[in-house]
Amino acid sequence: MRIVLVSPRNPLNIGAAARAMSNFGFRNLRVVNPYEVAFREARSAVRAQHILDQAQNFENLAEAISDCALVVGTTAAVRRDLHVPLNRLEAAGAMIRKQLQSTPVALLFGSEKFGLSNEDMSHCHWLLRIPAREEHGSMNLGQAVAICLYELRRDESAAEKGFQPAKSVTGEDLERITGVLLELLERSGYVQERTSKSAELKLRRLVRRLGLPASDAETWLGMLRQVLWKVKQGVTAL
Amino acid sequence: MRIVLVSPRNPLNIGAAARAMSNFGFRNLRVVNPYEVAFREARSAVRAQHILDQAQNFENLAEAISDCALVVGTTAAVRRDLHVPLNRLEAAGAMIRKQLQSTPVALLFGSEKFGLSNEDMSHCHWLLRIPAREEHGSMNLGQAVAICLYELRRDESAAEKGFQPAKSVTGEDLERITGVLLELLERSGYVQERTSKSAELKLRRLVRRLGLPASDAETWLGMLRQVLWKVKQGVTAL
Repeated sequence: MRIVLVSPRNPLNIGAAARAMSNFGFRNLRVVNPYEVAFREARSAVRAQHILDQAQNFENLAEAISDCALVVGTTAAVRRDLHVPLNRLEAAGAMIRKQLQSTPVALLFGSEKFGLSNEDMSHCHWLLRIPAREEHGSMNLGQAVAICLYELRRDESAAEKGFQPAKSVTGEDLERITGVLLELLERSGYVQERTSKSAELKLRRLVRRLGLPASDAETWLGMLRQVLWKVKQGVTAL
Repeated sequence: MRIVLVSPRNPLNIGAAARAMSNFGFRNLRVVNPYEVAFREARSAVRAQHILDQAQNFENLAEAISDCALVVGTTAAVRRDLHVPLNRLEAAGAMIRKQLQSTPVALLFGSEKFGLSNEDMSHCHWLLRIPAREEHGSMNLGQAVAICLYELRRDESAAEKGFQPAKSVTGEDLERITGVLLELLERSGYVQERTSKSAELKLRRLVRRLGLPASDAETWLGMLRQVLWKVKQGVTAL
């Protein structure tokens, strides 16, 4: 994968692109005709200096993509007169990953101010668009690079794997907690003896709605018992 | 959705977060205890000044998330002693979107240098991690915000919808192109008359492997005919 920045103006953005590349494990950065030649000193390339050091500088786009069998341009445009097929990033990611199995692919980003020119785009097999709002599609260069690289590293199967819900507490533990809590509430005067039976049912349902994780049951039981002990002690002291 | 930046140091990153929010159609930015109070002037908030203007400033995290029923923290850590469940961003996106249908959700980003503190994390129901390399998981703040918001706006169904492959050229047009090309090659001396039959078969297969889009057939035919005319003219002139 070659990340190609065409006529970038701000070295900080080149550094930010390098940092995102390091974050997501990409190495090959190419810079075409940068406005600031001293981009290798960009401080924004935090822990990605090796990528800036190895970045290749080209005078024109054709040279920068000469070894690539697929050239994909990025654009903020939604207009239809691009003369080149346009994909949303979600679809583009899979297409690029597939092509990468057999040949190098270039992903092109235009200058901060103007994006890719029509001439730049004529080198592209197709274009991709990050699904930003149509009213404000123009993104920061470093952020656009980061989002594209994230999509390339994205693992759809991981989307299904949320963390396992915590193991639920057993009925026995729930009943012990309910029992201690009921005694505590009776002794505190929250529950009156004559309504005690319906209070117990309400309490049992309340406790079950908590979604208490099994691993926390002992802690809650311990806290409640300690408070109950304190309440009992106070009553004795009177 | 509330985007909450906890103790951010660099106003440029706050502006970059605002820009990404505007790109992806989010509005509610909250800043807790920023290092630089004058963050509303950040020039990096290109076309997102309205978000910085409306950003709320809080002195502590508890106030900033008081109206949120789900609080999600971001972390670069992969270590297991976080005491809070950890999800990859791919899974987190769907979980957040689901919760947003009924209640406000806060997404927390820590400071550039230290990330979220253990105390910040104790306010979180769970954490998410952007799937960067374990060896270099620490991302630029503005880029991390942009990637999370992209995931929230991502449309998996769009991943299936690559552009339609161009309508293929008809057999009739292919045969016309093959015919003109063959005549051109014969007249140019590329094809000898005695091998002409096998050349025709080769040429027919070559032309069919081009994957010529139907809309380009007339253009190619026109170009070839013009060249053929020129070649014929030259021969006549001799």
